[in-house]
Amino acid sequence: MPAISNKIINRLTLYHCLLKYTFKEQRSISSFEIAELLDLDDSLVRKDIALCGVLGRKKGGYPINELQQAIEQKLGFAERKEVFIIGAGNLGTALVNYADFKDYGIDVLALFDNDSAKIGQEAGGKKILALDKLQNLIAKISIKNIILTVPPQAAQEVTDYAVKCGVQFIWNFTPVILKTPKAVTVYNENIVSSFLQMHNFI
Amino acid sequence: MPAISNKIINRLTLYHCLLKYTFKEQRSISSFEIAELLDLDDSLVRKDIALCGVLGRKKGGYPINELQQAIEQKLGFAERKEVFIIGAGNLGTALVNYADFKDYGIDVLALFDNDSAKIGQEAGGKKILALDKLQNLIAKISIKNIILTVPPQAAQEVTDYAVKCGVQFIWNFTPVILKTPKAVTVYNENIVSSFLQMHNFI
Repeated sequence: MPAISNKIINRLTLYHCLLKYTFKEQRSISSFEIAELLDLDDSLVRKDIALCGVLGRKKGGYPINELQQAIEQKLGFAERKEVFIIGAGNLGTALVNYADFKDYGIDVLALFDNDSAKIGQEAGGKKILALDKLQNLIAKISIKNIILTVPPQAAQEVTDYAVKCGVQFIWNFTPVILKTPKAVTVYNENIVSSFLQMHNFI
Repeated sequence: MPAISNKIINRLTLYHCLLKYTFKEQRSISSFEIAELLDLDDSLVRKDIALCGVLGRKKGGYPINELQQAIEQKLGFAERKEVFIIGAGNLGTALVNYADFKDYGIDVLALFDNDSAKIGQEAGGKKILALDKLQNLIAKISIKNIILTVPPQAAQEVTDYAVKCGVQFIWNFTPVILKTPKAVTVYNENIVSSFLQMHNFI
């Protein structure tokens, strides 16, 4: 897929959520309905949708099914993205249970932890493995993505180990800014920033 | 505080994470060190910091403590922001245990759920209350913020109830786009979008 901006990715995933949940009983939807619920300009919505190659009808708007599939194709949901979750605490467990991951092509293969009480257990139907098994497993099945949900004090050490094992993409849910080689991509899930942004609306 | 853009809020919270974790052993930090770890332009970092009223020294950069406190003041961390978490599953439990909330002034008072096995229990040292207690409690102590971590199929119904109870800000961790009156602010924590954005870097 040609690169599209992060803002467009963000809006398209929101449209997809709308189609999947809010309007799932309808057959079609207009750019005005989408724009109103998301507080966007309807011309922007039409531009985004045109990018996905779907044309609206003058009366009746966009067919829901077709639009949903077009967004899925544009955003590459069908491509399977295999990930390991490192840190099997509440957040790691919440994420492996996040029902929508599968729909987006995100496939959690296993969790890792170094708490012996958790190792051997399951979370969301996936095995919790000892952290020191990561190296062998990555060598065998070549997983490039991890979701990092360890406590802050362990974040950098675990990252160094994961990078040594060959991890290339880190989705970082810890509040620690990680030091990594240039070839590794880190996406910081800056949770508190969202809350402050919400209050900035006032 | 004068309104600052969401992008600046986002960067300032990232600088704060850096000062708090990565550079906590140092006494001072330069804009170049911050810029390199966050892959930003150093002139942008200096501009953001100037907004907080901190001046760097030609040699030696910014004093860590002073910069940290200035960011906290700029972002209003000292203001206490009381919230209820609705949905005491793994995600709600992860969030109430999120150690950094307190530092940012986010004070979780209680969790709510309608699972009788959870009601009366605690999570992160906070009581889990029956959802139908929300109305009385909001009437008594005037809480305006909720964090929504219920399953998707319950999201709209719980939102309608919370809005009826007087909630004005909803930090939405569900994938459902919520229908609310104009006076209510919803911030969608669009988790999957982040992952897709990360892969868009490729």
